[in-house]
Formats: sequence, C-alpha cells, structure tokens
Amino acid sequence: MVLVREAVGLTLRASRTSQSRTLRDVARAARVSLGYLSEVERGQKEASSELLNAICAALGLSLSDLFSDVSIELASHESVVLSVVDAA
Amino acid sequence: MVLVREAVGLTLRASRTSQSRTLRDVARAARVSLGYLSEVERGQKEASSELLNAICAALGLSLSDLFSDVSIELASHESVVLSVVDAA
Repeated sequence: MVLVREAVGLTLRASRTSQSRTLRDVARAARVSLGYLSEVERGQKEASSELLNAICAALGLSLSDLFSDVSIELASHESVVLSVVDAA
Repeated sequence: MVLVREAVGLTLRASRTSQSRTLRDVARAARVSLGYLSEVERGQKEASSELLNAICAALGLSLSDLFSDVSIELASHESVVLSVVDAA
C-alpha cells in the first residue's frame, strides 16, 4: 500500500525539479535542512504541517494544489491495486 | 495559515460522523487508541502515514478521496485569506 509521505515526497520533488531548482536552494528558502528536505522528498520522513507550509511557500505552491496532486498520485496507485485484484 | 493536520482532522471527523460512528468504534477498527484518534481529529497530532492508512481503512475511505477532500478544505481557507487581502 502506498504511503501518504511517499506521495507527498514525489509531488514536492516534481514541483522542485519542474522549476529546475536544487535541494539546497529550496531548503534554504524554506529554512529547513537539506537532509530533512531530501528525506521528505524520498518519502522517508513525515513532514510536519508547519514545515510543509514552509516548503510549499518556498516552492510557490499552495497547500491545496499540493494535496490535489497528492490525491491524484494516490489514486494512480489505488487503480493499479484494483487492476491487479481484478486480474486475479 | 491553516495547517494540513487540521484539514486532515476535520475531514476524518466529517467522514466518521457522516457514518454515525463513535470515536471508540473507529479507533477499535483502526487499532489505534481513542486518545490518538481524538487528537488527530482535532488537528492536534500529525497522523503517521501508516496510522492514516489504518484509520482510512476503518472508515472505508480511500486515501485519494481523503486528500481530495483535504485539498478542498485547504482551498476554502486559502480563498478566505485571498478575500481578506483583496479587501485590504
């Protein structure tokens, strides 16, 4: 089962790379450590709500847009699971 | 600024109450403590991704639907902020 922190990490990384920005740049703008941001992007750490606000602000991304994309990412995994169940 | 954990808590509580279920019932089904679920619903505790999966499963709610609703909840707060800024 896919985890929310993995979908959040993928979505944040996609937003950052679409802007051709480095981890270092976004971490500095969000005032979080580079290691923390890297772990969040890789889905290895749960971002606190406060730091998620800071990271989104650094990316110029609204929370509602982030979670709209997270919902789509989660749905794509859910449909894969349903396809596998249907095929079984 | 609204926090993601508050939007998640409101959305989880709305799902539970729309099913006329008690905190005790959902906490037992999700195998989390009643106090933990209550704190999550009130936006006082960040739910880990693993426990969010368990709570959603107990509610019969997909993660994608939860975060679609969370995104709408967040957007409603963002539009209020924009209205206040526009009016100033």
